[in-house]
Amino acid sequence: MAHITLPEGLPGIIGPLTAYRATEQHLDGLANTLMCGPSSLSKAERELIATYVSHGNECYFCWNSHAAVARNLFGERASVVDEVLCDLGTAKIDDKLRALLVIAGKVRQSGQLVTAADVAAARAAGADDQAIHDTVLISAMFGMFNRYVDGLATTAPHDPAVYETIGKRIATKGYGSMFREREQRSQ
Amino acid sequence: MAHITLPEGLPGIIGPLTAYRATEQHLDGLANTLMCGPSSLSKAERELIATYVSHGNECYFCWNSHAAVARNLFGERASVVDEVLCDLGTAKIDDKLRALLVIAGKVRQSGQLVTAADVAAARAAGADDQAIHDTVLISAMFGMFNRYVDGLATTAPHDPAVYETIGKRIATKGYGSMFREREQRSQ
Repeated sequence: MAHITLPEGLPGIIGPLTAYRATEQHLDGLANTLMCGPSSLSKAERELIATYVSHGNECYFCWNSHAAVARNLFGERASVVDEVLCDLGTAKIDDKLRALLVIAGKVRQSGQLVTAADVAAARAAGADDQAIHDTVLISAMFGMFNRYVDGLATTAPHDPAVYETIGKRIATKGYGSMFREREQRSQ
Repeated sequence: MAHITLPEGLPGIIGPLTAYRATEQHLDGLANTLMCGPSSLSKAERELIATYVSHGNECYFCWNSHAAVARNLFGERASVVDEVLCDLGTAKIDDKLRALLVIAGKVRQSGQLVTAADVAAARAAGADDQAIHDTVLISAMFGMFNRYVDGLATTAPHDPAVYETIGKRIATKGYGSMFREREQRSQ
C-alpha cells in the first residue's frame, strides 16, 4: 500500500503524477525535453541511460518501464538493453555510450565521483558537451524519479505486459501523453 | 574546472541553467511549484528540507544556498537551520517537521528506506498527504539538483556573501527570477 492516498489502478509514478498535477506538468515537461528533445544522443541511448540508472537504484517500476522504452527504440538491437544490465563491460555498445554509462553510474551514487578522466574517456570516444551534460542530468533526473516512486511506496506490477504498454506509449508519444490526451478530449 | 564549457562567473547550478535553457525552464518551473506553490508546509519548512538533503549529499553550493534561503524565511528563528544540520534530534523544531526530515533523509539515500512507521510518526505529529508527498519529492528533487551541480564539477564559491545574495533572491523572488527578469528587459 502506498504511503499516501493515490488513485487506484495506476502503477508506479503514474499515481502521484495523476494526483499531483501541479508538479506533474513540470516533471513531464522536463522528461520530454531531456529524453525526446534535441540532443547529440539518440532517444534509444538516452532511454538506456535511464534504464541503467533505475536498475542500479533497484527501482523495479522505473527500470522495467524504461527497459521497455529502450527495447522499443533499439528495435532489432533490443538485446543490448539486457546486455548492459547484465554486464556493462561486455555489452555490444560503442565506446562512447559505454563511457557515458560509466559517468551515469557514478552520478547515480554521487556527482562527486565523476572524474576528469571519466569525462576525457567519453570525449575521446566522441562525446561532446551536450552528451556529457545530458548524461549527467538524465542520471540525476532518474535518481529523482526513482526516489519519488519508491519513497511513496507506489505499486509495481510484475506483469510484463504492463511495461510493454508503457514502453510503446513513451517510445511513440513521449512523456505525459495520457494527460495531454485527456485534456484534448475534455476540450 | 567544470567538466563541460559553462559561462564564466556563474557558480553552481546557475552555470548549467544558463547554458541549457531548454531544461532550465522545467527545472525552475518544478522548483517554483514545489518550493513556493500551495502546500501544507511553509516555504521555510520546505527550504529547511532542501538544506538538510543537500547537506547530507555534501553538495556545498546547494546546501549553502538553501541554508541562506531558509535563514531568510525563518527570520528570527534562523538559528534552527544550523541546529538541524548539527543535530536533528535536539534541534528546536516541532515533531512534525522532525518526522518529515527523517523521511527526507531516508529518501536522500533510497526511497525504499521509508517505512510505514516513519509515515505514521509524521501523521501522528500532524503531517497530511500533501506534506508527505512534498517532503518525498523535495528530497528527490534536491538529490537531482545536487547530482547536476556536482556531476558537472561546477564551481562553489566559499564567500558567504554569494550565498546571502542567492538566499535573499530566492526567498523574495522564487526560482528562475534572473531568467524571467532578463527576458522582461529584452522585450
